[in-house]
Parts: sequence; C-alpha cells; structure tokens
Amino acid sequence: MTIEILSKELSRLFEEIVENRRYLHQNPELSFQEEKTSRFIANTLKSYGISVQENVGDKGVVGIVQGSEHGKTIAFRADFDALPIEDQKEVTYKSTVPGVMHACGHDGHTAALLAVAKVLQKHRDSIHGTAKFIFQPAEEKPPGGAKFMIEEGVLDGVDYVFGAHLATDLPVGKLSTASGATMASVDAFTIQIFGKGGHGARPHETKDSIIAATQLVQHLQQIVSRRINPTEAAVVTVGSIHAGNAFNVIADSAVLEGTVRALNKDVRAQIEKEIRAILEGLKITNYIDFELDYLHGYPVLVNPVEEAKIVEQFIKEQFGDSAFIQKEPVLGAEDFAYYLQEKPGNFFYVGAHNEEPNTQYPHHHPKFDFDERALLNTGEIFLKIANHFLID
Amino acid sequence: MTIEILSKELSRLFEEIVENRRYLHQNPELSFQEEKTSRFIANTLKSYGISVQENVGDKGVVGIVQGSEHGKTIAFRADFDALPIEDQKEVTYKSTVPGVMHACGHDGHTAALLAVAKVLQKHRDSIHGTAKFIFQPAEEKPPGGAKFMIEEGVLDGVDYVFGAHLATDLPVGKLSTASGATMASVDAFTIQIFGKGGHGARPHETKDSIIAATQLVQHLQQIVSRRINPTEAAVVTVGSIHAGNAFNVIADSAVLEGTVRALNKDVRAQIEKEIRAILEGLKITNYIDFELDYLHGYPVLVNPVEEAKIVEQFIKEQFGDSAFIQKEPVLGAEDFAYYLQEKPGNFFYVGAHNEEPNTQYPHHHPKFDFDERALLNTGEIFLKIANHFLID
Amino acid sequence: MTIEILSKELSRLFEEIVENRRYLHQNPELSFQEEKTSRFIANTLKSYGISVQENVGDKGVVGIVQGSEHGKTIAFRADFDALPIEDQKEVTYKSTVPGVMHACGHDGHTAALLAVAKVLQKHRDSIHGTAKFIFQPAEEKPPGGAKFMIEEGVLDGVDYVFGAHLATDLPVGKLSTASGATMASVDAFTIQIFGKGGHGARPHETKDSIIAATQLVQHLQQIVSRRINPTEAAVVTVGSIHAGNAFNVIADSAVLEGTVRALNKDVRAQIEKEIRAILEGLKITNYIDFELDYLHGYPVLVNPVEEAKIVEQFIKEQFGDSAFIQKEPVLGAEDFAYYLQEKPGNFFYVGAHNEEPNTQYPHHHPKFDFDERALLNTGEIFLKIANHFLID
Amino acid sequence: MTIEILSKELSRLFEEIVENRRYLHQNPELSFQEEKTSRFIANTLKSYGISVQENVGDKGVVGIVQGSEHGKTIAFRADFDALPIEDQKEVTYKSTVPGVMHACGHDGHTAALLAVAKVLQKHRDSIHGTAKFIFQPAEEKPPGGAKFMIEEGVLDGVDYVFGAHLATDLPVGKLSTASGATMASVDAFTIQIFGKGGHGARPHETKDSIIAATQLVQHLQQIVSRRINPTEAAVVTVGSIHAGNAFNVIADSAVLEGTVRALNKDVRAQIEKEIRAILEGLKITNYIDFELDYLHGYPVLVNPVEEAKIVEQFIKEQFGDSAFIQKEPVLGAEDFAYYLQEKPGNFFYVGAHNEEPNTQYPHHHPKFDFDERALLNTGEIFLKIANHFLID
Repeated sequence: MTIEILSKELSRLFEEIVENRRYLHQNPELSFQEEKTSRFIANTLKSYGISVQENVGDKGVVGIVQGSEHGKTIAFRADFDALPIEDQKEVTYKSTVPGVMHACGHDGHTAALLAVAKVLQKHRDSIHGTAKFIFQPAEEKPPGGAKFMIEEGVLDGVDYVFGAHLATDLPVGKLSTASGATMASVDAFTIQIFGKGGHGARPHETKDSIIAATQLVQHLQQIVSRRINPTEAAVVTVGSIHAGNAFNVIADSAVLEGTVRALNKDVRAQIEKEIRAILEGLKITNYIDFELDYLHGYPVLVNPVEEAKIVEQFIKEQFGDSAFIQKEPVLGAEDFAYYLQEKPGNFFYVGAHNEEPNTQYPHHHPKFDFDERALLNTGEIFLKIANHFLID
Repeated sequence: MTIEILSKELSRLFEEIVENRRYLHQNPELSFQEEKTSRFIANTLKSYGISVQENVGDKGVVGIVQGSEHGKTIAFRADFDALPIEDQKEVTYKSTVPGVMHACGHDGHTAALLAVAKVLQKHRDSIHGTAKFIFQPAEEKPPGGAKFMIEEGVLDGVDYVFGAHLATDLPVGKLSTASGATMASVDAFTIQIFGKGGHGARPHETKDSIIAATQLVQHLQQIVSRRINPTEAAVVTVGSIHAGNAFNVIADSAVLEGTVRALNKDVRAQIEKEIRAILEGLKITNYIDFELDYLHGYPVLVNPVEEAKIVEQFIKEQFGDSAFIQKEPVLGAEDFAYYLQEKPGNFFYVGAHNEEPNTQYPHHHPKFDFDERALLNTGEIFLKIANHFLID
Repeated sequence: MTIEILSKELSRLFEEIVENRRYLHQNPELSFQEEKTSRFIANTLKSYGISVQENVGDKGVVGIVQGSEHGKTIAFRADFDALPIEDQKEVTYKSTVPGVMHACGHDGHTAALLAVAKVLQKHRDSIHGTAKFIFQPAEEKPPGGAKFMIEEGVLDGVDYVFGAHLATDLPVGKLSTASGATMASVDAFTIQIFGKGGHGARPHETKDSIIAATQLVQHLQQIVSRRINPTEAAVVTVGSIHAGNAFNVIADSAVLEGTVRALNKDVRAQIEKEIRAILEGLKITNYIDFELDYLHGYPVLVNPVEEAKIVEQFIKEQFGDSAFIQKEPVLGAEDFAYYLQEKPGNFFYVGAHNEEPNTQYPHHHPKFDFDERALLNTGEIFLKIANHFLID
Repeated sequence: MTIEILSKELSRLFEEIVENRRYLHQNPELSFQEEKTSRFIANTLKSYGISVQENVGDKGVVGIVQGSEHGKTIAFRADFDALPIEDQKEVTYKSTVPGVMHACGHDGHTAALLAVAKVLQKHRDSIHGTAKFIFQPAEEKPPGGAKFMIEEGVLDGVDYVFGAHLATDLPVGKLSTASGATMASVDAFTIQIFGKGGHGARPHETKDSIIAATQLVQHLQQIVSRRINPTEAAVVTVGSIHAGNAFNVIADSAVLEGTVRALNKDVRAQIEKEIRAILEGLKITNYIDFELDYLHGYPVLVNPVEEAKIVEQFIKEQFGDSAFIQKEPVLGAEDFAYYLQEKPGNFFYVGAHNEEPNTQYPHHHPKFDFDERALLNTGEIFLKIANHFLID
C-alpha cells in the first residue's frame, strides 16, 4: 500500500476531524478531570470497531489496531486535557465551560489521532504488527498523565512511540523536529524560610526572614551565571515570594516558589544540589531554618537520533524539503518525555498558523486557535510512520 | 499650697482612678472609633464641674480648669485608644470587646489624668493661670490624633505641655525621662514595582519584578550601614514583600511595605532621599517602573532640656533620687512628638511592673497589665508640675 | 591526481615537519613580536620556490602557489605566535626563551601548513587556480593578527578559507568540526568606578567605591541568569577587582576587568547593553561615576553549513567514519572568525593526544605538548581540500 | 595654694612651651621609632630636676614628682609620635623629616605636659601625693604604646589618670568632654578567600573567588543594618579588595581588609561573631575556603561619670560655663582607652582653632596646625586636676 492511499483517506475525514476537534473544544476539561472527554474518545474508537482499554492510569484511553500478521508495535500518543483559562475567542465552537479552555491544541491532537486510528483500522488487514493509540489525560499538570499510563504498562511490548504538538509559532505546512534534547525537564520547588519576627524598630532582636529570602533570590542567580556550563541551557525562576503582613512588623517567615528547567539531566541534578548549598549557607549567615520541597516534574524530552532522522525524512517526502524546519530546543516541558525515556520514537511539531491573526496567538493565550488543516498534516506523518513500520 | 496636700488628695481618689481605668479597660475602642470612651471622659469631667470641649480634632476631649488669677497655661495630655489585640488575661476587668484591648496602658493614662483634673478643679481658686486637660484619641495609628487636635488649636495659648507613658519595663516607683530625642520618627512606605511577567522558562522576555524587589531589599541595607552617620540611630525595615502567584510564571509586579525610624529629622529626611535614589537606580538596572508611597508619620519626640531637668528634679523630690532613671532613646514612636514641636514641655515614663509576672508583659502583648499604683505616681508628677507653674 | 599521491608525499615530509615544528617550539615569540618566526616562515617558503609576501598586516607572511590554469583561490591559514608561559616540559626541543612557550600548538599549525605548501608547490602544474598560504601572527592576543591581514587585503580574490587547530582533548586520529557557531566572540571590559574616599569610621561622608563595585559584580550575574535567552550560551566573567590600599580608609575608586563571551552576535550586543544599564543604575544608586572601556575582540566563529559538510565528508573519507567527531560549541575564541566573516570556509579540529600523559595537558598548560602525527592529519585534510577545489 | 598661682606660672612658661612644641614639630618621628623624641623628653624632665624612668614599654618616658606628704597618685599622659605624612605648611617650624609630620598635635600634648610637670615640680613641697607624667610613644599605630607601658606597670599605684587631645574642630577657648563611651574600639580584619581559578570562559569549572568576595561585602552591610541595636553606633568598613590579574582568567583567591568600630564592647564582640557567621555561610554557598585574621585594636574609650563631671566643672570654673562643650561620641579611636580600662580618670578635648584658616585643617591633614594658646588651656586643666587631688 502506498502512503498516498492512506493520506487520501485521511483527507476525506477532514470534516469529521474538524467536527471532533470542535466538539472537544466546546467541552474542555481540566487535567485529571477529563471524564466526558475520555468517554467521548473511547466511544469514538469503539464506533470505528477499535478495541479499547479505558481508565488506563486513571483517565487514559488506549485503542489497539491489531494487524493480520505479526510485527512491531508502534504507539501514537495524543493528550486531551484543557487549561484553566477563560476562552475569549468569538467562534461558534467557543468553550462552553466558564474558565476552562483548550488553549494548547490538545483537542486537535486528539481529533487528528482519532482519524489516524480510523484509517489504520480500516486497513488492519495490511498491517503486520500493532498500532497502539494512547490518548493521555493531564499533560498540562505535573505529575502529568504519561507517568501513570506507563506505570500501568501502556508501553509494554511497544517498539516505538510517536507524538506531535501543534505549533502556532510555525506556519501551517511546516513541520519540525530534532534529535537530542528538545524540551526541558521541569521541576518545582517551594522554599520556606523560618526566621524570628519582631517589632519593625528592633531588627536586632529578630532573624529577619525577608533579608534571608531576598538574599536567596539574588544568590540563585549565580547558579545559572557561574555554576552551570554556559553552553548548557538552564533556568532557575522564582515565581513567587510572600512574607509579612504589616509595614512595621519584621516577618518571621517567608515562602518562595519557583521552577527549574534544563535540557540535560546532569544539569538538572546539579541545580538542585546548588540550591541546597545556597540554602545551607544562608542558614548559617542568617540564623534561619528552611524547608525545601523539591518536586521532580517531567524529565528532559530527548528525541533519539535515528527516529528524528526518519521523521525529518518523512516530513520532507510528504511536504517537500522546505517544509522541514530544524527544531531548536526550548525550555518548555512535555510529559511525552517519559515515553521517550522508555522507548525509541520521536516528538515532532506541526505548524498551525496561517495569515489570519486569530491563528497566531501563542499557546495558553485566551484567544488561542489554529488552522485546522494542521490536523491533516499531523495525521499524515503518523500514517507515514505507520506505513513505514507496519505496512510497507 | 504644698504639693503634699495635692498628693494626698490624689491618693484618696485611688479607688476612683482604678474604677475608671477598669471601666475603660473593659470597654476598649480602636483608634479613630473611640465614641463611648470620649463620651465617658467628657461626662466624667463635667461631673467634676470642669468645662469641656468635645469633638476636638474628631474625638478629642479637652477639659479646662481656669484659675482665679491670670498666669500660664499648662496642658496635660492623656491618650485613650485601644489596640486590635485579643485580651488573653484572666481578670475581672478583662476586655468585653472581642479582638480589642487596652494593651498599651492608655486606659491608665486617662484614668490618672481625670483624677489630676478633679484635684486641680477643686483647688482652682489657688490657681493663677489655666490647666488644660487634653484627652486624645488615636495615638496608636498614624496619622494619629494629636495632629488633628493641634490643627484645631488645642495648643493655642498653651505655655507648656506634658505627657506621660506607663512602662512595664520599669518597676513601679521608678520614673524616667531625658532631654533630646527620646523616641523616633516613624514613616511608612509602600513600594510597587512594575516589571513584565511571562513564562517561567522564558525570563529573557520578561522584566522580572522579583529580581528587582529582592535587589531593592538588599540595597536598602546600605542606607543604614553606609549612608547614615554611624553615631545616629536609624532603621529601615521591609516588613512585607509580596509578588507572584505561581511557581512557573514570572511575576509582573511586586509590592513591599516598610518603616523608617530615626532620632534626628535630618537623618529621617536623608533616608527618604536614599530610598528614592536606590529606586531610581533599580529602574534603570532592571527596566522596571515603580511607585513609592511614602507616608510621614510621627516626628522625632524631642524633650527640651529645661523641662527635662525640671521633671527629673520633680521625680527625685517626689520619689527620691534613686527613683529617677535616665531614659535611653528608643526607636518606638509616639504622637506626643507633635505637641513638643509646638511648645516646650516633657514626656516622661512611669514604671509600672511589680514582682507579679502579670505586670511584666511587654506593651502590645495580649496579656499586658500593670501595677495600678503607677497611676498615682503619674498623677503626682502632673500635680507637681501644676503646682510649680500654676500654684506656688 | 588522487589525494593518495598528495598524502603520500606529505607523509614523506614528516621528518621535516617535525624538525620545523621543533625549531619553532624552541624559538617561541610573543604575539606581535614574532620577528624571527615570520622570517623563518618566509625563508622556508622561498626555499620551496614559493612566491612570498612579507609584513602583511605587520608580521604576516603569505605564500602563493599559482596553478597553471585559472580557477578558484583557496586560502589556508596557520597562526604562529607563542604565549607568555614558562615551558616546564623536559624535552630536547624545549623552549629556549624564558617565560615564552608554544603552549597552544601554533608551532604545529605552521609546520603542517609549510609542508602542505611544499607539496602543492611541487604539483602547481596540476592546479587550476591559486593556493594561498596565510601565516598569521598574534592569534593569542586581541585585537589579533587576522584583522590586520584582512585589512591589508589578504582575502581579496579568495573564494574559500580554511584553518585548523590541534586539540589535545581529542585523540590523535579523530578530527572534528561543525556548522554554525562553534567558538565564541570575546570582548574585554575595564570598568572604573569613581566614588569618594574617606576615613573608615565615617562612611557617611564618602561614596564607597567598594560597595558599588561589589554590587556591580552581583548585578552582572543576572545578565546571564535572566536577560539572555537560556538556550543561548553566554558568559560574563569579572576576572579582576582592585580597590583600596588600607584597612581603615574607604576607597575612592575601584577598577574591574572582565570578559564577555557569546555564540551569537545579538547576544553579544545585548550583554554590552545590559552592562551599561547596570552601570547607569548603580551610578544613581551609589552616587558614583564610572568609565566603561568596552573592547570588541574576536567575533563569533561561524562555520558555514556547506563547507562544514565538505570537511566532515573529507574527514570520514580520509580517516574513516568513526574518525569524525561532531564539534560541540565552546566559549573559547579564535580570530579565524574574522576570515569566516568575509569568506566561506571551515575551521576544524585535529585530535592530538595519545596514551602518553605528556600529550594530554590542556592548551595553555606549562607542560603542553602533542602527538606530532596530528600534523600529518592536519595536512591531509588541507591537501584534500586543495585537491577538491583546485586539482580534481 | 590657689589654682591662680599655678596658672600664672604656666602662662609665664608659654614661650618655652611653644619652643618645645616647635622643636618636636621640626623633628617628628614615626610610631615605635621615637628615639630622639623620648630622649628629648627625658632630658627636659631631668633639667627640671624631675626623676625620670626611661624605656618604659620600649620608648615610653615617665616623670615623677613626689610630694612632701603622702596622698594620691595622679597620672597625666601625653603621646609623642608623628605620622607618615609630608608636611605641606609654610612655617618656620615645618618638619625637617621628609614624609613625617606631627599632623595630630602630639607635639603640643607633650610640650604642654612638660610645662605642667615643671610647674608642679616647683611646688612639690605643697603636694601631698604623687604626680606621674606618662609620655607615651606610638598612639597612632595599633597595638599602640599605651598597652606596653601599662604592661610594664606604669599604672601601678596610680589612683586617677588624665589625658587630653587638641581639637581643631573646636575653637580655642572651648573644651569638651563627656562621660561614657566617647571614642570607639577599633579592630582590623584581613579576609582571604580561596576558590579555584580557571579560564574566564569556563566558570563552571571554577569556584569564583570574586563572586564570593563581592557577596561577602554585600552581606557585611546587614550586620550594621539589621543585627546591631540601631541605637548603638557601629561601623564595618571594607577598605580594600584585591583579586585577579587578568580580564579573562577567573581569580582563584581574593583578599579583603577592613575595620570594625563600636562604642560598646558587646557590640564589638557581636560584630566579630557576625563576620564569622557570614563567612561560614559563604563557605558553603560558594564552595570556598577562607582565612579570617581578626586583630583587636584599641578598646572603647569610656570616661567614668564622676571624673567627667569633675573635668566639666573645672572647665567651667577655669574658662566660664560657655567654654564647656558636651562631647558627642565619635568612631575614631585612641589608646588612652587602655588606661581608662584600668583606672578612673578622664580624656578631654581642647579647642585649638582660631579664625586663621591654617588652624582649621582636620587632624592628619598635611597642613594641620593649631593655635598654640590651646597648650596653655590644656595645661591649666591638668594643673587644676593636680591642685584638686594633690594640693588643695
């Protein structure tokens, strides 16, 4: 079978893809709360005659298309949670849930993968091996949904795993990927500083927690500026600091929250160590105590070299050489990284903006939307991958 | 007339003083809300046959005892507001108002001064001149009540003004004062820092307000450590800092509150100037904007030399040489400072703890209480002053 | 002609290469002072019958091998200055100049290129086009020698330019290059801070330059940690700070020196801007004046994609696929960057250590040495390039 | 005997006083090198018939006038060392020693005390007790001369000790003193920070000593701003910082020198403790080692209350009430503090400028000079003290 046949069939599903995507867009659900969404996905897969596992790692749904012959197992993943953002678009398919919105394109990921599943199910007789469709909840909110689905065995027996993300910073028709670290690990920390409060006019009787907390923020800067190899990417952000309630009372404690991003697991580990060293030092300097709650979120997303080359090749073949854009690493995070810790595969990006301003908002923007033709492009690459590993 | 007569009469009023003090203690009212209290004071004065002005500078009450002959006008001041503190004592006269308490002794100041007024009213025929009794609301809360009473003319025609404060860090029987700056000016500042928020992984697209705010706190330290003459007392306290709501979002703004204390008005002015210079510098360094709301609270309380000597002398005569304790300056504040900006006079401190632990809590403590004999000591010095200027 | 012939001829020159290298090693000269070295190079080229230009951009030497037919002009560059380091090796060819040493391999670069020139001169009849041999002084010391040679026209008419560097962190037999930014821009700054000195016990009468200077160093950290895109490499190092002469006198001025490195010219420009902003801010915060002397050193070395691919290909052909190592960018600098600003070409790295510890010291180490077979490898790639563009 | 007689006799010696002072002024000697000066003093005392001890605590000279009857022993101290300053005055008695100058008035102190000794020696028959004249070297240079003279027993048997300092910030005719802490303790510290150096482009391989050193200076600010009671005077000055030699090499070590001043020995001790805490913290935060060399210099100069009152009284009696100026504490230091640690007494200040600009330069200025009539005033108070304790 040629990819052309599969692509053509996908094209014919465009209306259905759009319909599904818009249904999801109108009915967004927050991470870990995607009940209607997961039921919708399961039912849709079943309506295609696909065998379905539900409640995998809580709300995950897995569709399985078993080929007529033995062969490899290739997994495709789409995420389906929405964000706590009020939809500010004026479109017919606007979110119907106040304060909740698909502002990152996960509705599109799911709609595209459903169509891919439908096409492959139709051609299951030509398949040697298995196509596995992983519909994953809670990508937006660490610890994320991937982890739990993997713990329940979703990758058992899988040979390769692929995922895609729509990208409104890339025009529709362009696709990108890269080998190596392309998205960052993300950790979250909460630091409590315990000093000793007192009267604002009598600092010498206190251990001023604001002095210690502000020193901490300043010292954290030198982790990135001096401790980390400058050719490595790293971010230490303090996102919040809160201490004290009155202008004339010295605050007895302070609490800071922040995030650590890296594209290299050694750098990630080093940053945590450095934060601890700074805190241990400040403890002595400022006579304070501290509590560091350090949460390890998603790991670095590392695309293996081999599959990155394959996907690059497929993009070029399918859309022309100039359609391929080398992906530059970013410090955003994605729990697809967990799948790639277990299995080879690739995560690629699908251009989704056109000349209309409404498709050009950044992800997580309250007016976020995209050119729905990008869903066909996503599906075509998935089908090309399936064709390569399971059909050709 | 000898002071002995006046003192003896005061002593005979001890029960009444205690009764008044305990009534006030059970019925505390917050600053600027002292309706019942001011009515109680006015009625009590009237019951002594004293001429009363009410609603002076809002809730102030002024009693006037006109002597039979012309002479000087001597003002005595007591404050009468309570604090937003829950009374935790177990006494019969415990506060009946939840969350409000006389935890600084103002109930005592008022009770003592009422008795002084009563005694002097009785002896008004011996008086050449005028005794003025200033009962002032809202000492605890800048802008304070003194300012408004003065603006309404309460010091017009006054030659000298005297005030006293109970002190639980001094044993009953000891009294203290000093010439020069003895209590601090108090200013309050609120600083808003306006940066530009953004994603925690993309600091380069933001102006991180937490970086600027924490630098600010660190820079403020050098005002006291380097800019102010080290033989001058000064405090710059940042009492609160608040910025950001999420671990992975860079905060677009920060707000800090603090207080400035000094014992010298030039130092006070210099600190304000230095804060502005630091902010102007940070504005450039960090590409932020800021808003500084700088509120001038009470001025430095400066006791004139002459009257400090007189009060010292009176304390020694009345209670023996060893009863006098030289007052060391503190960085607490008191709006009696406004009176002393206008007229000569003195502010003195009256020892109020005994061997019982319940009289040894610091001011503003939820178990604060004092030895009520201190009220007689307060009154005796007031009477001695009256006797000196108006009777002898 | 096949490359095999050229390679073989080069091999036969191994003894001469070693002899030349060791002569240079024994007679090192500091940057901008390489009189004997340039004379030696010129004489050696002349002894091969090669036409020579001397004193190009001061001490530069250019050899020209004119082919029998018209064609492209390909330039090869070797640098020949030594470093102010005392040679601590115990070898027969140890430096004879106290405190001066070839501790970076430039002696090797020159010896290898001389041999390449000799081989190509011999085969000039087969050449269509021109081979240009640029022997450049003063690579170690900005502003460097490249700039001046280019200003005198050394690249006029040149189509491609190639250079190589020995690398003791790579084993002999391995070679590496990469496209894009592979070495950093290097700038140098000197900052003088002018405060106002005074007695150590009277800080309030001074503008303490040490306070300002130490704040500056702390603030500079946030350029890399917060202002620069974290996926970009950048370094701001303060290498020296000097202020004050006495423990009890406040220093009136301070001087700091440092370096800025980047792999992207926009980042480079941004860092300079940020340093200025920080200084302008500190000027206000600390009432100081400053003078910033910001010297732009070598630019980012950017290898064009096309020629990087060619050199990669040549390395693999000549030494096997596994001989090629993808070069990771470093923040070291090299004035070959100037040539690549003008013309396409490539800068590659030639592995030079073997199992002997004496070949494993890092560059600029007082015991630095290398496996001289690396010089043949260097020459082979140069010959392969010549063969490709000028002979085949 | 009345003080009038003694004063008159002193006045008659004015020419001799001036002559002695000017001889000393022309022949200044640095601290611990005052050979000619001590010989001159000893010889002069001997010429008056006074019994002399030489080489007390190295170069100290002690004259003793034994009265005819038993009584108290009263010591008077003058210091006699000069400073490493080039005399820039144009006067006949200008320093003849290049780079050395009496720029603090010690020549005057000595000349005045010699005259006092001469007067008292003449009246030794009227004396009950002993007058001891302590001529002390090396006041300007810690550890100072006082310490060694005391260790050799110069205060043994002494009941009271008095000293004076000329003051060009006070007009001639005014004298000042105060009880309590009037001059500061002075300590000196040297801090070495040991990090790990390296290439300026590779901070992650180093422990940057400049980062640690500059953090240290910033942290030291909070000792004065937050740790010390704000009503106490304290200074922590870093007077010098030196690290690194090259713009592109990360400095492996840094050295800082500074001084600590306080008017209270507890504050002094606390500051030392705080410096150590900050260093211990930075050691952890920055992976550095450090060495703190903390030298305890002169202690706080504390004038006892009783003798301060006596001297105040004497000043008023001798020169009129308005001649007395209450001394405000300063953070300068004086090794007379050691004497007052052992014995009661007083250190007072003698106004020494007139309307001529040449008498108005601050101490340690290269044009420092004073109105020599101040020497008579100094002597008169010494004689008044002697008269009070030994004659009357």
